[in-house]
Amino acid sequence: MPFGYNGKILHVDLTRGTTRVEEPDEKWYRTYLGGTGFVGWYLLTHLAPGTDPLSPENPLVFATSVVVGAPLSGFNRYVVGAKSPLSGAFAETEAGGYFGPELKFAGFDALVVHGRSERPVYLWIRDGIAEIRDASGLWGLDNWLTLERLRQELGDPRVRVVSIGPAGERQVLFACLQNDLEHFNGRTGMGAVMGAKNLKAIAVRGTGKPALADPEKVKEIARWHNERIKSHPPNVGLTKYGTPGLLKSINDAGFLPTRNFREGWFEGAEALSAPVYHETIFHSNSTCWACAVRCKRRVERTEGKYPLDRRFGGAEYEALAALGSMLGIRDLAAVAYGNQRCNLYGLDVISTGAVIAFAMECFEHGILTPADTGGRELRWGDAEAMIWLIGEIASRRGIGDTLALGVKRAAARIGRGAERFAFHIKGQELAFHDGRGKTGMAMGFALSPTGADHIETPHDVAFQGDGIAKLFPLGLFDPVDPLKTDEAKVRFFFLGQKAWGINNVLALCNFTSVPIHAMTFGRLVEAVSAITGWDVSLYELMKAAERANVLARLFNNREGFTPADDTLISRWFEEMPSGPLRGKRIDPERFAELVRLYYEMSGWDEQGRPTRGKLVELGLDGLAGA
Amino acid sequence: MPFGYNGKILHVDLTRGTTRVEEPDEKWYRTYLGGTGFVGWYLLTHLAPGTDPLSPENPLVFATSVVVGAPLSGFNRYVVGAKSPLSGAFAETEAGGYFGPELKFAGFDALVVHGRSERPVYLWIRDGIAEIRDASGLWGLDNWLTLERLRQELGDPRVRVVSIGPAGERQVLFACLQNDLEHFNGRTGMGAVMGAKNLKAIAVRGTGKPALADPEKVKEIARWHNERIKSHPPNVGLTKYGTPGLLKSINDAGFLPTRNFREGWFEGAEALSAPVYHETIFHSNSTCWACAVRCKRRVERTEGKYPLDRRFGGAEYEALAALGSMLGIRDLAAVAYGNQRCNLYGLDVISTGAVIAFAMECFEHGILTPADTGGRELRWGDAEAMIWLIGEIASRRGIGDTLALGVKRAAARIGRGAERFAFHIKGQELAFHDGRGKTGMAMGFALSPTGADHIETPHDVAFQGDGIAKLFPLGLFDPVDPLKTDEAKVRFFFLGQKAWGINNVLALCNFTSVPIHAMTFGRLVEAVSAITGWDVSLYELMKAAERANVLARLFNNREGFTPADDTLISRWFEEMPSGPLRGKRIDPERFAELVRLYYEMSGWDEQGRPTRGKLVELGLDGLAGA
Repeated sequence: MPFGYNGKILHVDLTRGTTRVEEPDEKWYRTYLGGTGFVGWYLLTHLAPGTDPLSPENPLVFATSVVVGAPLSGFNRYVVGAKSPLSGAFAETEAGGYFGPELKFAGFDALVVHGRSERPVYLWIRDGIAEIRDASGLWGLDNWLTLERLRQELGDPRVRVVSIGPAGERQVLFACLQNDLEHFNGRTGMGAVMGAKNLKAIAVRGTGKPALADPEKVKEIARWHNERIKSHPPNVGLTKYGTPGLLKSINDAGFLPTRNFREGWFEGAEALSAPVYHETIFHSNSTCWACAVRCKRRVERTEGKYPLDRRFGGAEYEALAALGSMLGIRDLAAVAYGNQRCNLYGLDVISTGAVIAFAMECFEHGILTPADTGGRELRWGDAEAMIWLIGEIASRRGIGDTLALGVKRAAARIGRGAERFAFHIKGQELAFHDGRGKTGMAMGFALSPTGADHIETPHDVAFQGDGIAKLFPLGLFDPVDPLKTDEAKVRFFFLGQKAWGINNVLALCNFTSVPIHAMTFGRLVEAVSAITGWDVSLYELMKAAERANVLARLFNNREGFTPADDTLISRWFEEMPSGPLRGKRIDPERFAELVRLYYEMSGWDEQGRPTRGKLVELGLDGLAGA
Repeated sequence: MPFGYNGKILHVDLTRGTTRVEEPDEKWYRTYLGGTGFVGWYLLTHLAPGTDPLSPENPLVFATSVVVGAPLSGFNRYVVGAKSPLSGAFAETEAGGYFGPELKFAGFDALVVHGRSERPVYLWIRDGIAEIRDASGLWGLDNWLTLERLRQELGDPRVRVVSIGPAGERQVLFACLQNDLEHFNGRTGMGAVMGAKNLKAIAVRGTGKPALADPEKVKEIARWHNERIKSHPPNVGLTKYGTPGLLKSINDAGFLPTRNFREGWFEGAEALSAPVYHETIFHSNSTCWACAVRCKRRVERTEGKYPLDRRFGGAEYEALAALGSMLGIRDLAAVAYGNQRCNLYGLDVISTGAVIAFAMECFEHGILTPADTGGRELRWGDAEAMIWLIGEIASRRGIGDTLALGVKRAAARIGRGAERFAFHIKGQELAFHDGRGKTGMAMGFALSPTGADHIETPHDVAFQGDGIAKLFPLGLFDPVDPLKTDEAKVRFFFLGQKAWGINNVLALCNFTSVPIHAMTFGRLVEAVSAITGWDVSLYELMKAAERANVLARLFNNREGFTPADDTLISRWFEEMPSGPLRGKRIDPERFAELVRLYYEMSGWDEQGRPTRGKLVELGLDGLAGA
């Protein structure tokens, strides 16, 4: 009997209407651990190259890990992955909430959905039993109504539900998944994959728990961790203001993407900042299972034209930037309302903001005109236009049908030079961090296998001055300069990427774990050991993170991605026109040279392909599909 | 005030007669840690390429580490390094005993000896003060008399002394260093370097101790470790029989080098085995500072022509093979006596046995004749010839002067095809483990920067079956097959080399530490943290070991070594003629291919040169000399 995990992976074939339980051995679990490790393994071994991401053959993986379900802050997430319909690349997208641990408690460590149902269905998983059920009555409902209806139908208010909204059903290429209306697998378009499978929702209820190898030790670490969360400054900040607390400092530093990345400083940032948020729309903190940080925001507003319901998930930093500074909108209520609409429709708010910004800039340059929008103007700062477009995209109506493809494909469809304003990396829209202000994050954007990804590596800013001490256990002793693009920065990124990658294989939250937040490397290793009974080491965890990254790289190489895709958006190669970072740019030749250096550090050849030596080192040389 | 170390490196310039104290910063200490890390750093930054190893310019480094001096079993060693006069390559050679901690207690973490004195001198180091003193009265004395005389002269029986014997004075190229007559920096000819500097001895006495960051935790780990040493089978075996306990099992497995590596099974092994050893010559266990294993043997024999003195160090496994099976000698007393002569003269017993075996095989083939030996026959099994040759080598008389060059140079001087029987790797004679029986160790022989080195990597045999669990924290989950030469073996070697390399940078004993012996990876990390106050990780330690290995590789590349030097002896490419491994060979093409795979895994190019990416990863890209 293993500790920490169930030893069972649930496979559901929607084409055949069958379910099957796989029981991998302990070596497999310890090699891949969970999260992106599981996703990479299934994609590489279960998907033929060149497959249409919206075809039945694309497996949709829901992965917890060998530690999810342990009662520790931030140990509660799950990763959803498949081939991305947005980028055609490796996709993985994490969420917190209650679904991950519930899946563990129901007896499974991961769920892999194969095939496509002829008609809408949902899955009902409880304590080792999985049923495929008719969802005809749910199809077309938003995420809230879907949840309500399922709880009624299943007669259990404690059922945990992952669902897609109308956007996923209509295969908007950046449709997302949600659970409990507050937690989102936002990026890479997994909602479209779920929609293409005619899978509306997954309901889970479990009453078991994987045994812990050393429950007393886990308790002791939980006490220590939760106590430290109360005093560790980054966590104190998250508890107080959540991610909205970042907005003002990012704007003050000059890298808040504004008006489609044209600027890095937004004159209206004050109105979107955390103090205003708290004075005007904040209702209460919310949280994920067993987490002491409570970084999530509930918002409420009963008056005015932008009502906010506290059940529907308050805007995070990314939403404030997406629907605020990126669009030149300073009306916080409107931004929060737009965010709420995205949540209910099941749209990734990051890509949604980015495509709307793209549309507005196209409109400004006459590339889109009222003839394209049914007569509607699309102007910077126009909150009504933003909210209207969210609906149009979710419904795939008119211009919304074009924008539902993401900026890359939308620009191709529009033509007229629209690609000048279509900012994406590997086909995915960027989250809202201007790389000119934190070049380590820029490397993450360029080199993340999922395309532009702001959680590929910890932010440069956390490792200035004494902050670098957080990375001493990686052998990195020099403070980071956020603005430099040099060898030292590549080294920081190389190591930071693996360190944060641990969180993605273990499905841990970056907001409680290494290296920025309350967890330390030493205690993390202790925690994983206490949960699993394995004498794991940081070396092993770093290499597991690297292994997951290499699996994703192998996948992308197989799908035809090349070094030309490991780059940044053109705007970051140009001088920042205004704000505190005025005049800053990243030199494209230097950046490309450092990307090649990163390949060399990674044991990849000049074409960015992992060498045989690297595969042997990671124990991947025999892997089918590698 | 640092924990664990003094923050002071003592530099002595024998040419100028001056001393100087260097105080590197904490980052330097944490980057290089000690041992081979310090040696590599000083050689790369303080020695011009192509320097004659016996010239004053060759710095002789005595390195402890940031943890030496902590009261833990096996934490008490020191590493001596320089450019090797035997191989021309990177040299480092470890010893236990009491000298390492005493140097720490005297206030220094390392000693670097530069230059050459005009006349014989010794160093007297006590509590932060260093003096260069006249050693005219010591020159010519053996190690025992040197120690006695120094203790008298300094009036302190507790003074710890490293010295060279007559072999070092005469610059026998494999002369060694000893401390307390029982502990030897045996390999790579550091005794010749010390002799060339006219430095007879280093006497140390210290009454201080570096502070420990968490003394209670160190005590707790010491108790746990010492308790585990009592029950952990490999340590129980070492306590009971010491390394002589290995001889029978190695012979039974068929890889006991016999008659100059011609065979792998010795018909006389029984007579040299541990039970016989214990019945006939064993006196008592001896040990190193603070160590509970007590693996060292004291021997005593008052009768017969081979008297043994319990003060002079009992034969280890390597000595039994060197002067026993390698020469076809089964007279244990003679072997132990030969070992004692080597100890007193200051000859590395491994190279000594190997050159004598070479001489005997040359004699067998008529390449050496009585005309070369002053009429003496050199026949397999002739103990008298062995003891006579030890004296001739130490005195550099006649054929002994030729053999004092090591087999590579001796064969070149002899000519007549003698190189057929001169078995060395990179110019260093091999320790006594036939690579056909443990191919992982063969890789260590080929790829150690010091030339053939039996402690480059842990022995394959410890990781068969359940034994592989010891390497789980490295992410290696498959048992090792000692006889296979394949990708899995390269991976085992790649990881094992770094894991054992940790012991060489921290100056820990392989017989108490990871991965075979009582220490675990997790507790080792805790111990280093408790001593230093640093939150070190296994990742950091593995990378520090790799960094030291890369420094040595850079050094060797600079000195002109190429991939052609990363190979094995010809006999291992041939079928084992007899014994349990009869018919076994290593395929040379396959081996060369796997060496190239190792380069690729290491981030080295096809010429075995670390890439810029690797240097950046390890933080070595700015290093002078790199």
